[in-house]
Amino acid sequence: MKQNIYDNEIFFNGYSKIRENENSANNIFEKPALFSLLPTLNNKTVLDLGCGYGEHCIHYVEEGAKRVVGIDISQKMLAIAKAENAHQNISYLNMPMEDIGELQERFDIVVSSLAFHYVEDFQALIKNIYKLMNDGGVLVFSQEHPINTCFSNGSRWTKDEKGNKLFANISNYSVDGERESIWFVERVKKYHRTFSSIINTLIEAGFKIDKLIEPVPTSEMLKENPDYKDLLQKPDFLLIKATKGTSRL
Amino acid sequence: MKQNIYDNEIFFNGYSKIRENENSANNIFEKPALFSLLPTLNNKTVLDLGCGYGEHCIHYVEEGAKRVVGIDISQKMLAIAKAENAHQNISYLNMPMEDIGELQERFDIVVSSLAFHYVEDFQALIKNIYKLMNDGGVLVFSQEHPINTCFSNGSRWTKDEKGNKLFANISNYSVDGERESIWFVERVKKYHRTFSSIINTLIEAGFKIDKLIEPVPTSEMLKENPDYKDLLQKPDFLLIKATKGTSRL
Repeated sequence: MKQNIYDNEIFFNGYSKIRENENSANNIFEKPALFSLLPTLNNKTVLDLGCGYGEHCIHYVEEGAKRVVGIDISQKMLAIAKAENAHQNISYLNMPMEDIGELQERFDIVVSSLAFHYVEDFQALIKNIYKLMNDGGVLVFSQEHPINTCFSNGSRWTKDEKGNKLFANISNYSVDGERESIWFVERVKKYHRTFSSIINTLIEAGFKIDKLIEPVPTSEMLKENPDYKDLLQKPDFLLIKATKGTSRL
Repeated sequence: MKQNIYDNEIFFNGYSKIRENENSANNIFEKPALFSLLPTLNNKTVLDLGCGYGEHCIHYVEEGAKRVVGIDISQKMLAIAKAENAHQNISYLNMPMEDIGELQERFDIVVSSLAFHYVEDFQALIKNIYKLMNDGGVLVFSQEHPINTCFSNGSRWTKDEKGNKLFANISNYSVDGERESIWFVERVKKYHRTFSSIINTLIEAGFKIDKLIEPVPTSEMLKENPDYKDLLQKPDFLLIKATKGTSRL
């Protein structure tokens, strides 16, 4: 149930190489979009779900957060976080996201980068997050785009005879649930949820939807890297900002 | 700009046949979802944007609405509405949706079935709707699903050698704007907007997002009509319910 692929040696090594690449899709499209959705962090408390190497946690402290708690299921990740991104305002906790209901602290901001699609029970996760947040608190998260998570096997693209990408392929978009995909190691489990499942789960838990981002390359970026045109066919990521209503509402 | 395909003779005849079919996707998936999102209509005022034959308007009166205004760009449609679905509580107005800013009346509920994807300037439309609504008013609309509106030409499906549908094809999802498609007559213009464009436009205008529906067939429906399994690959429709905040907020 609580999948810890990041402590798999092969996966971890493959993943490490991606993260070292400054021109990765994460660095160019996902991270700037995620940070753009964050409110002012000055004097705020922040919970980072799936903090990995802690690179975001240290950024939040630099932006003025008075306390940051980073949790991750992977001990390997947290060992690096503690070695490279330690700070007196940051606590790193080895804990699966599914167990955050155990935390006693409350937070102004909850943030998560590309981790929610590994969690099976999204409703329970969102309910737990809501409980952990102060009134007026902000949740910002990114995940793989539903157009991507829906897909389970076969080719991602339909190509012409010359190998040009004609169409992005989707399948079983309307069917929420487990998908197995191969990423460095075999059988990485991800969970697909439709747009409406994601949005309705947030609303039912009490959140107000503030903004969505499906990052796309600018024309400048397309000039530098023509391969980014694939993102015009289908985006890689979905980012959501939502607010916990105050008790007045 | 203000596209009136419904007064085209060929289009109108083709469309009429679809609407006569009680087992159309509209009747089975879109209409029940649309009605399920409506609040109690008792003693409310309702504006129906793109009311067509007025079948929904008469339903709203039956549900207790004290006044319904149905607007449509098509005189042919409204002639049928007035002949078949007239009621003392309903006014039918021949007007493009783009001109609703001219209306002086205010409404508790604004509803629209499968018409917004014909409108080029979605931001202006949504701003106009917001102005026409009473505080606490509810907007409910359906449109073609963004997974469908993104597509402009080529095959909708990638099939295997036997003709089985392997994948639904999408293209240019990330690029908002005009799409031409062929539907009864050539060159029907529709406007694609990504999920984030649609949701963010509503939020920026002042609406609170309440619920989304991407209708899917039940297992019962799949038994009766196995072709509906295509909707598990990709939904046809997107429905959204949003509320105009009260001045307290």
